[in-house]
Amino acid sequence: MQVTSQNEGTARPLRDSVEQAVAEMGDSWSFLILRDAFFGVRRFDGLLKTTGASPNILSARLKKLVGFGILEKRAYNEKPPRFEYRLTEKGRDLYPAIILLMKWGDHWAGNGDGNEAKSTAKPPIELIHRTCGKPIDPVLECDKCGEPLRVHEMDWKATGD
Amino acid sequence: MQVTSQNEGTARPLRDSVEQAVAEMGDSWSFLILRDAFFGVRRFDGLLKTTGASPNILSARLKKLVGFGILEKRAYNEKPPRFEYRLTEKGRDLYPAIILLMKWGDHWAGNGDGNEAKSTAKPPIELIHRTCGKPIDPVLECDKCGEPLRVHEMDWKATGD
Repeated sequence: MQVTSQNEGTARPLRDSVEQAVAEMGDSWSFLILRDAFFGVRRFDGLLKTTGASPNILSARLKKLVGFGILEKRAYNEKPPRFEYRLTEKGRDLYPAIILLMKWGDHWAGNGDGNEAKSTAKPPIELIHRTCGKPIDPVLECDKCGEPLRVHEMDWKATGD
Repeated sequence: MQVTSQNEGTARPLRDSVEQAVAEMGDSWSFLILRDAFFGVRRFDGLLKTTGASPNILSARLKKLVGFGILEKRAYNEKPPRFEYRLTEKGRDLYPAIILLMKWGDHWAGNGDGNEAKSTAKPPIELIHRTCGKPIDPVLECDKCGEPLRVHEMDWKATGD
């Protein structure tokens, strides 16, 4: 994005989509719940273990994610009634963003000494692209020209309503 | 990622990179500060206006982001001493993930009635790829075969330590 000093101190008039996204997602627990949903964990007890959240917190976050239409609650057993949480289309669409956060974490997170260098350690989880069978390091590209996107090569404009 | 029921209820032994990333980033204010840093807002007063955070919250979050090496604090004036916050390489590397959250927000966020449909409205901010001059809708691709990545086409494996 273009970095200009003219933005300095000027309140942008827009509530942009990042703001809307974090309003729905901007909680660590929600990210962990979604990460685990992508790994196939769908039930309350399973999520308790994989996220490490307390039952109260997990329950509140699941309710919020269901309320936003990111997860849906479905019965998988009638007697006794038992439910699981499945990603909706809206929820599945978060997958690329979660993957990029994971890759960023692979490269950068964890030392936090303010004197960071890119990690060369093997990441704890390797992603495999089933289509080509290879381990992948996902890249963000321009859908128009196919080039990888870099921060200094992007501008933005308000579309205005 | 492969969605299998065998993950159900099994605590994964790993603290993966999503967990590390959200530990550094998993706060709504941090996302908003970073979004604005990408838009070129670098000073405390500017960030107060653009994020809407209180001075206390902004100050705490900036300290945290500097501590994690995501932002760095630099003097831009000596008398009186004045500082600005600039993205480090580690911080700039978050750009693709923030962009994808923004695109997700463009498509999905905002209604939150649990009955979601993809929005067809014009997003508030349009991204332009300076390299090709076109408005972009970034896509995540496999760095090996170049195909767009979809959730059901990815597997994962623990690399094991």
